[in-house]
Amino acid sequence: MRSELADKLGLEVPIFAFTHCRDVVNAVSQAGGIGVLGAVGFSLERLKEELDWIDAHIGDKPYGVDIVIPQKYEGMGEMDPEKLEEMLAGMVPQEHHDFATKLLADHGVPEWPDKDDEMGLLGWNEAMASMMVDEAIKRPNCRLIANALGTPPADIIKRIQDSGRLVGALCGKVKQAKQHENAGLDFIIAQGTEGGGHTGEVGSVVLWPAIINAVNTPVLAAGGIGSGQQMVAAMAMGAAGVWSGSLWLAVEEAEAEPAQKQSYFDATEEDTVRSRSWTGKPCRMLRNEWTDAWNTEGNPEPLGMPLQGLVTADAIRRTHTYAAKGECQKVAFNPVGQVVGQINHVETSRGVVERLLTEYVDTIERLNSLMPE
Amino acid sequence: MRSELADKLGLEVPIFAFTHCRDVVNAVSQAGGIGVLGAVGFSLERLKEELDWIDAHIGDKPYGVDIVIPQKYEGMGEMDPEKLEEMLAGMVPQEHHDFATKLLADHGVPEWPDKDDEMGLLGWNEAMASMMVDEAIKRPNCRLIANALGTPPADIIKRIQDSGRLVGALCGKVKQAKQHENAGLDFIIAQGTEGGGHTGEVGSVVLWPAIINAVNTPVLAAGGIGSGQQMVAAMAMGAAGVWSGSLWLAVEEAEAEPAQKQSYFDATEEDTVRSRSWTGKPCRMLRNEWTDAWNTEGNPEPLGMPLQGLVTADAIRRTHTYAAKGECQKVAFNPVGQVVGQINHVETSRGVVERLLTEYVDTIERLNSLMPE
Repeated sequence: MRSELADKLGLEVPIFAFTHCRDVVNAVSQAGGIGVLGAVGFSLERLKEELDWIDAHIGDKPYGVDIVIPQKYEGMGEMDPEKLEEMLAGMVPQEHHDFATKLLADHGVPEWPDKDDEMGLLGWNEAMASMMVDEAIKRPNCRLIANALGTPPADIIKRIQDSGRLVGALCGKVKQAKQHENAGLDFIIAQGTEGGGHTGEVGSVVLWPAIINAVNTPVLAAGGIGSGQQMVAAMAMGAAGVWSGSLWLAVEEAEAEPAQKQSYFDATEEDTVRSRSWTGKPCRMLRNEWTDAWNTEGNPEPLGMPLQGLVTADAIRRTHTYAAKGECQKVAFNPVGQVVGQINHVETSRGVVERLLTEYVDTIERLNSLMPE
Repeated sequence: MRSELADKLGLEVPIFAFTHCRDVVNAVSQAGGIGVLGAVGFSLERLKEELDWIDAHIGDKPYGVDIVIPQKYEGMGEMDPEKLEEMLAGMVPQEHHDFATKLLADHGVPEWPDKDDEMGLLGWNEAMASMMVDEAIKRPNCRLIANALGTPPADIIKRIQDSGRLVGALCGKVKQAKQHENAGLDFIIAQGTEGGGHTGEVGSVVLWPAIINAVNTPVLAAGGIGSGQQMVAAMAMGAAGVWSGSLWLAVEEAEAEPAQKQSYFDATEEDTVRSRSWTGKPCRMLRNEWTDAWNTEGNPEPLGMPLQGLVTADAIRRTHTYAAKGECQKVAFNPVGQVVGQINHVETSRGVVERLLTEYVDTIERLNSLMPE
């Protein structure tokens, strides 16, 4: 299925794969789609390493980088990451740290070996994201930058576009899509409430056409993309392609402990929840004892973004690293969309792309066969 | 677009229109789809009148009747409607009646003229629904019965099927769909969280294929159907047709005060909420001061079904009848799905059916044009 946006990027198929794993980025781009590396959570050094690896493997294929600059957050305007972090650290009640620490201990999640190796704020702010963008646009094959939360600041948009890259952003409301368009973004990702990560309340089947009809900018459909049938649904609404994250969490190339992949395989479409308990903003993830605990009267309420991230940064690395230890999965951060119910076994990234295409073509044929003569 | 279920019912197009208005039932059936009369809220006498009118106008076209038998409700098993009502009335705290009365008074909603004309329980129970089914299956052109909540009791299924009619039911979870199939239903309506009325939490784009893949019974797609594009999305997943309610609330033939229709025209896809404040079960409707008031700490919490219905029965008729009076729309019961954002002006029922078909055909053509040669 053709789309102008895909042509511009030199893609064979308009499949955009959001992932934190460089191997998945490479595998999807090699298969004809485009891998987009989620940089949030990486230090700048780590991002450089990942991009170096991708550049060494990607050949002549394009890839993208996804950053997170929230539209609004505590400490906005402070562009020195260290000062920002210090300022924010003072705003987190000790009670929140204690509660998080106890939840992990109660479930037997091992301590991080090096106490001095602090996690800090990472990418959830303009200061860090701006440096990440500068790093990404040095790389010839990095052809697009996406912002996962809100419209990027004007100077960042300009830097990206002046460098010849495309810039886009996610949204879950028509109003946000119009803001994106007014800011001059090259594409918009419309994510329905089904989607994993930060997501709104309007379902994909209603949100996609609402946004597509409201703007003249190409729109990628996100939230509930796990099959070629769902991809047909997106293209039927007029989408320029599909953006998926959940689909790549448990592929062969994804760097995740088997226990974490198993959590995704075991879950049905009813086992996710929109919760503020990890990042401070409503984010869809597997429901577990952690999400329940932060939603129980009498317990601390999640702080806003990025403060809650300071509370949970250590928990994120411990639950990912020690995924199989103790009852870790009961308190792990496993962001994913409702489409997780369709993810039941390991596939290769190329296999997923090929399956989507086969299902897509079969579905178009079936739809044609249902038409009256 | 053909489907076996539509062929069985003699439909030209697999469009199932749920409505409380007999004129809409007739108009949709005349246009080649099938109108399904929502009987809940009618007395048995009123249902007879409505069906008499439909029978006098429907010619050789089929129609359906929709009833509500909750899977679980207070007073289950009591089959004498008067005794059931008396028993339940005693279970409603006076505080709830007072709170509802005050909300209406505060917004200038006129009193019902005849104080002795009590509303009572109406159809939200097996006792009433069973009598309604008996009335419906006397009518030759009534070809299907649907239950809006849960699997109907075995004896009701048997009575309907023995009479040569089809019986189906709504659901929002795979587990419920399997229960429907195991009970021998002829079709299943899979409604995503986008849908109006009683609805679950899984989005249509994920729920539809999950249910279609889990059962061998024909599945109608509901929740977010307002255009031919959305209908293509449903058929792409393998649906046997589409079931819609919101789409018919504001058509020319719909019996509703202009002020109520205007509330639907004014609303966007973000203006609905799942609330227990009218029926006692989570039901999607326009968000307003009534839904907010029942969701505010310190105010009474909604009771279960059907007790909350005893609290709100009078409010429902007053807010519908006096839709334009005072600030009635701020406390009115306006059930509708997120697709309400697409409903912005009056269309005829036939016009809606024809628009869906035109958009459907255009979409299939566009999808074909996107295929690589």
